[in-house]
Amino acid sequence: MFEALIRTIPDHPQPGIQFRDITTLLQDKQGFAAAIDALAQAYAGHQFDKVVAMEARGFIIGAALAVRLGAGFVPARKPGKLPWATISQAYQLEYGSDALEVHEDAIAPGERILLVDDLIATGGTALAAVALVRQLGGVVEQAAFVINLPELGGMQQLASAGVHGFALCQFSGH
Amino acid sequence: MFEALIRTIPDHPQPGIQFRDITTLLQDKQGFAAAIDALAQAYAGHQFDKVVAMEARGFIIGAALAVRLGAGFVPARKPGKLPWATISQAYQLEYGSDALEVHEDAIAPGERILLVDDLIATGGTALAAVALVRQLGGVVEQAAFVINLPELGGMQQLASAGVHGFALCQFSGH
Repeated sequence: MFEALIRTIPDHPQPGIQFRDITTLLQDKQGFAAAIDALAQAYAGHQFDKVVAMEARGFIIGAALAVRLGAGFVPARKPGKLPWATISQAYQLEYGSDALEVHEDAIAPGERILLVDDLIATGGTALAAVALVRQLGGVVEQAAFVINLPELGGMQQLASAGVHGFALCQFSGH
Repeated sequence: MFEALIRTIPDHPQPGIQFRDITTLLQDKQGFAAAIDALAQAYAGHQFDKVVAMEARGFIIGAALAVRLGAGFVPARKPGKLPWATISQAYQLEYGSDALEVHEDAIAPGERILLVDDLIATGGTALAAVALVRQLGGVVEQAAFVINLPELGGMQQLASAGVHGFALCQFSGH
């Protein structure tokens, strides 16, 4: 069902890439509500202290889900965006590298964390977020996504790091 | 109440500026839930088709509020971030200018819009978002913020554009 509300943009941002655009899902009030409902349902019976979500599309899914689940919200941001003292974790991109940061006081030791992003591809960003949470003593209980691109293996990368991931829908032929 | 959960960072990002950091509110599960509850309460009896929220902190408040109000969600983003056809609106900064974009199909004529951002200062970003919504034929019914800096006059700017703004809390001495 969710696949039908996601727009595919061929050859974006470069030839051969099919970009999956969730803005068509988000702007559909029934679709957005159903997506958050379905994610909340997937975690019925779980207790999370905080959702950690990745800038910037992850904020949209993560914040809505945090309020639904009664959890706090922690933004994981690109370098230099957070105003207070941070910890940082670099990760590899296809060409070059990037990093994610969270505030030093964002997570207390032992807190149960749900990671949230809009999409998982190779899993590089998600693994960086897992590392940040663990640096602060948090426990990554689960990771939730709207879209999985299974051919890129991100869910296996997360599993290798001991984290179970779940996505609402998946697309082949990235 | 919300003021006490917001961290003030003196002299950030430059000397003389007191930066109001909402991450301490967001990571507090009771505080975040109470903020979204209070905003939803402020719009009890209103019907919005969509929330339009500004990148990136606005996404956090706007997405949570959209789901609570049963509205769709439209991200207003910095130039070049949206993958499909966009319309753009420039606005002035203290030094230089910036722009906001939304997808051309983000809003249908006549749709009732709630604008959301984390903070209103001079109102430049909010007015750019109002202009974008109106370009697409939408009706900006209300604008909601967590923080107002009243000395900077943004709420008056919005009022001059015919939009009623509301903030959960305010700080003087920016």
